[in-house]
Amino acid sequence: MEGEDILYEVRGKVTIITFNIPQKLNALNGEQYLLLAKLVERADKEEDTILTLIQSSGRFFSAGANFADKSLANTDAADLFSHEYWLNRFVARNTYLTELFHNHRKILAAAVNGPVIGLSASLLALCDLIYVKEEKDFYILTPFANLGLVAEGAASATLFLRLGWSKASEALLLAKPISGKDLNNLGFINKTYDGQFKTTEEFNQAVHDELVNAFENLHFDSIIQNKQLLKSNRDQLITSANSKEVIRGFNKWIEGVPQGRFVQLAQKDIKHKF
Amino acid sequence: MEGEDILYEVRGKVTIITFNIPQKLNALNGEQYLLLAKLVERADKEEDTILTLIQSSGRFFSAGANFADKSLANTDAADLFSHEYWLNRFVARNTYLTELFHNHRKILAAAVNGPVIGLSASLLALCDLIYVKEEKDFYILTPFANLGLVAEGAASATLFLRLGWSKASEALLLAKPISGKDLNNLGFINKTYDGQFKTTEEFNQAVHDELVNAFENLHFDSIIQNKQLLKSNRDQLITSANSKEVIRGFNKWIEGVPQGRFVQLAQKDIKHKF
Amino acid sequence: MEGEDILYEVRGKVTIITFNIPQKLNALNGEQYLLLAKLVERADKEEDTILTLIQSSGRFFSAGANFADKSLANTDAADLFSHEYWLNRFVARNTYLTELFHNHRKILAAAVNGPVIGLSASLLALCDLIYVKEEKDFYILTPFANLGLVAEGAASATLFLRLGWSKASEALLLAKPISGKDLNNLGFINKTYDGQFKTTEEFNQAVHDELVNAFENLHFDSIIQNKQLLKSNRDQLITSANSKEVIRGFNKWIEGVPQGRFVQLAQKDIKHKF
Amino acid sequence: MEGEDILYEVRGKVTIITFNIPQKLNALNGEQYLLLAKLVERADKEEDTILTLIQSSGRFFSAGANFADKSLANTDAADLFSHEYWLNRFVARNTYLTELFHNHRKILAAAVNGPVIGLSASLLALCDLIYVKEEKDFYILTPFANLGLVAEGAASATLFLRLGWSKASEALLLAKPISGKDLNNLGFINKTYDGQFKTTEEFNQAVHDELVNAFENLHFDSIIQNKQLLKSNRDQLITSANSKEVIRGFNKWIEGVPQGRFVQLAQKDIKHKF
Amino acid sequence: MEGEDILYEVRGKVTIITFNIPQKLNALNGEQYLLLAKLVERADKEEDTILTLIQSSGRFFSAGANFADKSLANTDAADLFSHEYWLNRFVARNTYLTELFHNHRKILAAAVNGPVIGLSASLLALCDLIYVKEEKDFYILTPFANLGLVAEGAASATLFLRLGWSKASEALLLAKPISGKDLNNLGFINKTYDGQFKTTEEFNQAVHDELVNAFENLHFDSIIQNKQLLKSNRDQLITSANSKEVIRGFNKWIEGVPQGRFVQLAQKDIKHKF
Amino acid sequence: MEGEDILYEVRGKVTIITFNIPQKLNALNGEQYLLLAKLVERADKEEDTILTLIQSSGRFFSAGANFADKSLANTDAADLFSHEYWLNRFVARNTYLTELFHNHRKILAAAVNGPVIGLSASLLALCDLIYVKEEKDFYILTPFANLGLVAEGAASATLFLRLGWSKASEALLLAKPISGKDLNNLGFINKTYDGQFKTTEEFNQAVHDELVNAFENLHFDSIIQNKQLLKSNRDQLITSANSKEVIRGFNKWIEGVPQGRFVQLAQKDIKHKF
Repeated sequence: MEGEDILYEVRGKVTIITFNIPQKLNALNGEQYLLLAKLVERADKEEDTILTLIQSSGRFFSAGANFADKSLANTDAADLFSHEYWLNRFVARNTYLTELFHNHRKILAAAVNGPVIGLSASLLALCDLIYVKEEKDFYILTPFANLGLVAEGAASATLFLRLGWSKASEALLLAKPISGKDLNNLGFINKTYDGQFKTTEEFNQAVHDELVNAFENLHFDSIIQNKQLLKSNRDQLITSANSKEVIRGFNKWIEGVPQGRFVQLAQKDIKHKF
Repeated sequence: MEGEDILYEVRGKVTIITFNIPQKLNALNGEQYLLLAKLVERADKEEDTILTLIQSSGRFFSAGANFADKSLANTDAADLFSHEYWLNRFVARNTYLTELFHNHRKILAAAVNGPVIGLSASLLALCDLIYVKEEKDFYILTPFANLGLVAEGAASATLFLRLGWSKASEALLLAKPISGKDLNNLGFINKTYDGQFKTTEEFNQAVHDELVNAFENLHFDSIIQNKQLLKSNRDQLITSANSKEVIRGFNKWIEGVPQGRFVQLAQKDIKHKF
Repeated sequence: MEGEDILYEVRGKVTIITFNIPQKLNALNGEQYLLLAKLVERADKEEDTILTLIQSSGRFFSAGANFADKSLANTDAADLFSHEYWLNRFVARNTYLTELFHNHRKILAAAVNGPVIGLSASLLALCDLIYVKEEKDFYILTPFANLGLVAEGAASATLFLRLGWSKASEALLLAKPISGKDLNNLGFINKTYDGQFKTTEEFNQAVHDELVNAFENLHFDSIIQNKQLLKSNRDQLITSANSKEVIRGFNKWIEGVPQGRFVQLAQKDIKHKF
Repeated sequence: MEGEDILYEVRGKVTIITFNIPQKLNALNGEQYLLLAKLVERADKEEDTILTLIQSSGRFFSAGANFADKSLANTDAADLFSHEYWLNRFVARNTYLTELFHNHRKILAAAVNGPVIGLSASLLALCDLIYVKEEKDFYILTPFANLGLVAEGAASATLFLRLGWSKASEALLLAKPISGKDLNNLGFINKTYDGQFKTTEEFNQAVHDELVNAFENLHFDSIIQNKQLLKSNRDQLITSANSKEVIRGFNKWIEGVPQGRFVQLAQKDIKHKF
Repeated sequence: MEGEDILYEVRGKVTIITFNIPQKLNALNGEQYLLLAKLVERADKEEDTILTLIQSSGRFFSAGANFADKSLANTDAADLFSHEYWLNRFVARNTYLTELFHNHRKILAAAVNGPVIGLSASLLALCDLIYVKEEKDFYILTPFANLGLVAEGAASATLFLRLGWSKASEALLLAKPISGKDLNNLGFINKTYDGQFKTTEEFNQAVHDELVNAFENLHFDSIIQNKQLLKSNRDQLITSANSKEVIRGFNKWIEGVPQGRFVQLAQKDIKHKF
Repeated sequence: MEGEDILYEVRGKVTIITFNIPQKLNALNGEQYLLLAKLVERADKEEDTILTLIQSSGRFFSAGANFADKSLANTDAADLFSHEYWLNRFVARNTYLTELFHNHRKILAAAVNGPVIGLSASLLALCDLIYVKEEKDFYILTPFANLGLVAEGAASATLFLRLGWSKASEALLLAKPISGKDLNNLGFINKTYDGQFKTTEEFNQAVHDELVNAFENLHFDSIIQNKQLLKSNRDQLITSANSKEVIRGFNKWIEGVPQGRFVQLAQKDIKHKF
C-alpha cells in the first residue's frame, strides 16, 4: 500500500483508494484533493482492474475541504482575493475532479464509514455504488450556502437526479444534512451493514469482499459498456453543471464572500452548519 | 396581513401567502387563481425576502379549481364553448401560473395541512420544499382524466420527475389519489409532523419557524444561485410541458368535453374521483 | 382466448396478453418474443380498448430469453457467428420490441406473479403500471454482464430513470437481482397484494378488476393524451438507448462472446447469476 | 372562398388561407390573429388535404400586429395595464398561435409576396416551406426590442435554428431586418421567383400549382410521418421557447413598457425600425 | 484491392471503400448494403488508418436501394408481407448501418462523383467530409414519400441539422431532389472540383491525395478526440431518429404500402421521383 | 483608454476592448488571455452599457496562443509536465474564458480586421455579432490537431452549430482554415466591409458607429432578455463542451503531447498549419 494521507493499492481486480487522515476526519486540503484526483486517474488506467473502491478510516468518510489548513492561513492576503489564486485552487481542481469522477471507466464504489461533507459529498454522489457501515451514523451535508459558496462537484445535477427535487432543495437551498435514513429510502445507498462491524477496517474488508464476489462471474467488457450506456442518461446534465458551478463559485471567491464568511464563522457571528 | 380569500404578509425574510377559504376547502375559482399568481409574482419581487411560504387554512390545502363557482354558472352558454372564453380563462391563466411558480427566484415552500387537488396539486409539485401536517390525511389527486381534461400546471413533467414512472402513471392515467405515505416514501415530502399539531395555525407557525431557523446562517445569494443551478436540470422539461398541456386542455374545452363531463358528474352518470 | 404459448384476449376495454409456458417459467425463445411483439402491436390497434394488461402463469412472470431452446441448439455453427443470424434474431427483434412497448398508445399494465429476468425485465420496465402478487417473491434480474451481453430493451435508460443511479448500477454493472422490497421502496411497483391470493389466476383476476374499476369513470382520450405528455419526458432517452444497446449487443454476438459464456456456464466454469 | 379579412378555401388537397387586408399591408389586429389561429386549426382537421398554404395579397405578406387598431385605442386606460387584459390579448393568443403552427400535422407552406414583420414573421418561421415572389422585395423584421417587447412566436428558437447565431442575434438583439438575400443564402427560402410574376395573384397561383404538382405522386401518410420525425428535432426547443417568451412579453405589458414606447414612437422621441 | 461489387483497400493511413456496380448506377441490393456495413465496420477496426474514404465508380455515387433486384422478385409472396422478412431485411440492416456510420471512429469522407439516392443519401449525410466532382451533376434525393416509406438512415435528423428546416422539408415532405448548388450553399459540401477531372477515377485519386495531404501533419489521437467531441452535439438526435424511423418504416412494409407503390410505379399509375 | 497589451474603454453605451499587440499579430500569452477574461468580466458589470465590442489592431485579429512566449520557455522542465502547471495555465483559464464569453449579458460583438487563430477563434465563435473588414483576408483556423491538442473554448459545440457538420469537421478534424468566403456563406459573418477601409482604425470606428446607430432606438432590457432567450438554445451544448474539452486538453498536456509537437514543429519534423 502506497501513500500517506491517501493510500493506493491494487488488489487483484480492485484498486483501493483510502482516505487516511482520521485525526482530521479525513478533511482534505487542496493538495490532498489534487492527490485524490491523480489517484483516481491512475486507477482509471490500471490495466487489470474492473472496480475502483474508495474507502476511509476512522469515524468520518470525509469532512470535506479542510479550510483550516495552514496553506490557506499562510497565504498572502492579496493573493486570497486574486483571480490567479482561485483559478488554480478552485476552478481547475473542481473541474478536473468532477470530470474525472464522472468519466471513470471502471465501476466506482464507495465504502462509507460515516458522514460525508462538502466537495467530498459531491464526489460521493458521482460514485456508482454506495455501501454504508451504519445508516444512523451516516449523512451527507452540502453546506455551500452556509459558506457563501454554491454547489460544487456537479452536486446541483447529481443531487437533483439522485435525491429528487424536495431533498435536493433541502440539501442545497437550506444546507441541511440529509440523513442516512432518507438516503437509504431514496435509493442513494446500495446496502447498509447496520451493527455488523465494529471497526471501519472490518467494514471496508467486507465491502471489498462482497464486491469481488459480485463481479466474479461477470464479463468485464460488458460491465464497462453498461456503464457507458448508463452514463448517456446523465452526461450532459453533469458536464453542464460542472462548467456552470465552477464559475459561479469562482466569482464568490474573487468577490471575497467565503473569505468573509469564514471570519464570521470563526467569530461565531454566524453558525456553522456542521 | 392583507387580503381576504388569499392573504399576503411579509414577515421578516419570508413572504407568507395563505389560502383563506376553508369553508370551500380552499377550492379556487378563476379569479382566485389569478390573484394567487399576482401574489406569487409580488413575492418574487420583495426586496428583502429569501423564501415564499404558501400555507392554507382548515382541513384541505386546496381542493383545486372551483368549477361550482357562480361565475361559470352565470356564463352565457355560447361563451362557454368559445375560443375567446377559454383562451382567457384557461390558456392564459395556466401558462402564467405555471411559469411563475417554475421561475420563482426565492425558495418556494409549502406548509400542507391536508389534501391537494387538481391545478393546486400541480402547483404544489412546482414548490421546492414540502412540509406536511399529517401524512395519513395528505394526498394529491390530479383528476384531469375524470373531467375530460389533460394534465395541467406542467404536472406531466413534475410528477414524472418527482414520483417516477409508475406513480405518475397512476396519478395521470388512472386519476388515482397518491397517498401521503407514497409521497413520503418517494421523497416528495421534506418532513411530516404527524400528531404534533392540533390546528393548521399551529402547524403553519411551526413550519415557518423551522424554515426561518434553517436559512438563518445562510448566504442568501448562494441560495438564489443554487436554485438557478437546480432549475437547469428541469427547465426544458417543465416549460415544454407547460406549452403542450395548455393547448391540449384548451382543445378539450372548445370541443365541450369537460362541460359535458360536468353535466354527467352532476347527474351521477359518471362518478367523481374526489 | 386465442393462442397457446402466449394467450390473447379482448375483454371489454382491456386486452389481456398472458404468458402461458409455466413449465419453462415463461422463458421465451426468439419466436415467442416475436409473437409477443405481434400481440402487443395488435393490442395497440384494438379499437375499443383503453388498457393492455400483460400477465403470466405459474411461478415466474418470465425467466427471460430461453437460450436452451432447441432452435439455437440446432443452428449451424457457422450461422451462429454470422452477421445475418444475429441481425435477424437479435437486432431486429430487440429494436422492434422496445419501440413497440415504448410507443404503446394505451395504458400498459403488468400483473406480476413472480420474478422477471433479462429482456422480459426490460420490457416490464417499459410498462406504465406494475402490480405485484407478493413483494417477497418478486425480483428483477438483468444478467447481461453475466452472459457477456449488454443492456437490452432500453434498460440502460429505464432502470436509470426508475431505480436511480445506485440501484441501476447494481442491476447492470453487478448483474444483481433487485428485490421486490427495493423495487417497492423506489416506486417501481404500483401495488403489492401480499398474502391476498393463492393462485396466479386469482391475482390476475384481481388486478384486472381493479384496473377496470379504476378507468371506469375516466375519459379515454384524456388518458391517451396524458400518456403522450408523460412520454415526452423520456422519449429521447429511451429511443436513443434502444439504438445504442442493440448495436453493442450485436457486436458481442458476432464476436462470439455470449456463445462462449454459454459454454462456460454449461461447464460450470463460471456461475449463473440466476 | 369564405371570409373577408382572412380568406379560407379548400381546393382539392390544399387548404388556402389568404391574408386579405392589403390596404393595411396585412397587419393583423388581435381578433384577426385569433381568426388566423382558428383557420389554421380548421385546416389541420380537413379530412382530405395534405397541405396548408398561407398566402397574402398586395405588397406585404403581413406587417405584423396592427397596434394602431381602434380596439386598442378605445380601451380603457386602466385595462391597458391590467393583468387580465394582457393575459387574454397577449399570453393566450401567442401561446395558442405558436403551438398551432408548430403542431400543424399537414405540410405548412407560405407563398410570400413581400415583407413580413413581427409576430407574422415568427409564424412564417414556423412554416415548413417558404416560397418568395421577389428576393429583393422580401425581408423579415422582428422589431420586438424596438417596441420594448421580447421575442414572440418562438422566434428565439426558430431564428436560432434557421438563421444561425449571428443573423438571429442581428434580428433579435438589433431588431434589424434580415434581407431576402441573406434568407435565401441561409436556406430559409425554398425558392424565389424573381421577375416571373407581376401580380401577387399570379405568384400565389404558381406556388399553389407547383406544390400540387410536387405531392401528386407521394404517399400522404409518409409525408405526415416524415413531418413528425422532423419535428422531433425541434419540438422541445420550440415549446420551451413559447412558454418562456410569452411570460417575459406579458411582464413587459403589465409594466407598461411597450405602451410607453408607442407613445414615444408616436411622438418621434424614438424611431420606428420599420 | 479486394471485393467485386464493393471494393476494399487499405492504402497507407486510408481505408478506401469503392462502390463498383456502375452498370446499375451503384444501386445496392440488401446483401450489398450489408456488405457495405461489414466493410465500414472492418475499416473502423483497422489499426493504422485515420480516415475511411467512400468513393464510387461511373456516373452515380449510388442510386440507393436496388428494389429491382432479383432476390426481391424471387421472394415468396407470403414472405413479402411477413414480420420476419422485414425485420431481417429492413429493421436490422437499417439500424445497423445507421449506427455504424454514426459511430465510425475515424474521419469518414466521401468522394461523390454524381447523384446519391435513398438510403445511400442518408448514409452520405452521416459522413464528416463530402467532396464533389461536379456541383451541377450532383444532387441528393430521398424519395421515401414517393415509395410509401418514411425517412431512413437517420435522415430526419441529419437533413434537419445539415440542410435546415426548409430544405429538409423539401427533401422529406416533397421528396424533391436537393441540387448540388443548394447543398454547396448550405455547407453540406466541403469542396467541389468543377471541370477539373474527366473521369471518376481521376477525381477519386485527387480527393484521396488531398486528404492524405491534409492530415499529414496532424496528431491522430487529437483527430479522434475532436470527432468524439463533435459527435456529442448530435448523438442523441441521431440515435433517437434511427430507432424511430426504423419502426415506422417497418410498419409500412408489413402493411404492404411500399409493395403496392412498386406495383403502381411499374404500371405507371404513379410517377417515379427519380 | 486604459491598458497596454489590451486596451479598455467605455464610450457611451459601449465597452471597447482592443487587442493591442500588432507586432505579434495579437497572439496572446497566458497572462494576456487572463487579462482578456478580466476585462470581459468587467465589461459585463458596466452599469450603463448595452454592448461589448472586441476589436483589434494591425493585420491579424488574433493569432491565438503565443506559445513562443518567454514565460513558457523559462519554465522549469519538471513543471512543464506537472498536473499543477496545466491545471492553472490551461484548465482554469479555458474554463473561465469560455464561460465568461458564453454568459456575457450584453451584446458581444467583434470587429474583425483579419485572421483569427486557435483559442481566439473559439472565443470569436462565442460572439453574437461578427463584422469583418475584408472577406478575402479573413479566415479562422483551429489547429488543435496539428499541435496535439483538442478543441478549446467550446469550439466543438460552436463550430458545429455555426458552420454545420462538414465545415466543422474540416476545421477540427483536418485543422484547415475556413475562409472568409465560406464563413460569409454560412452566416457566420454579419457583414463585410470589403474595400471600404484602409486602416483597421477606420474599420473599427465604422463598426462602432454602425452598432451605436443600430441599438439607438431599442429598449435595452428587451435586448438583454432576447439574448437570454437565444442562449437557451445552446446553453447545454456549450457548457457541456467546455467541461469535456478542458479535461481532454489537460490530459494531452500532462502526457506531454503538445510539448513534443512543439519540438517537432521547431525542428520542422512536422509542418505548421499556420
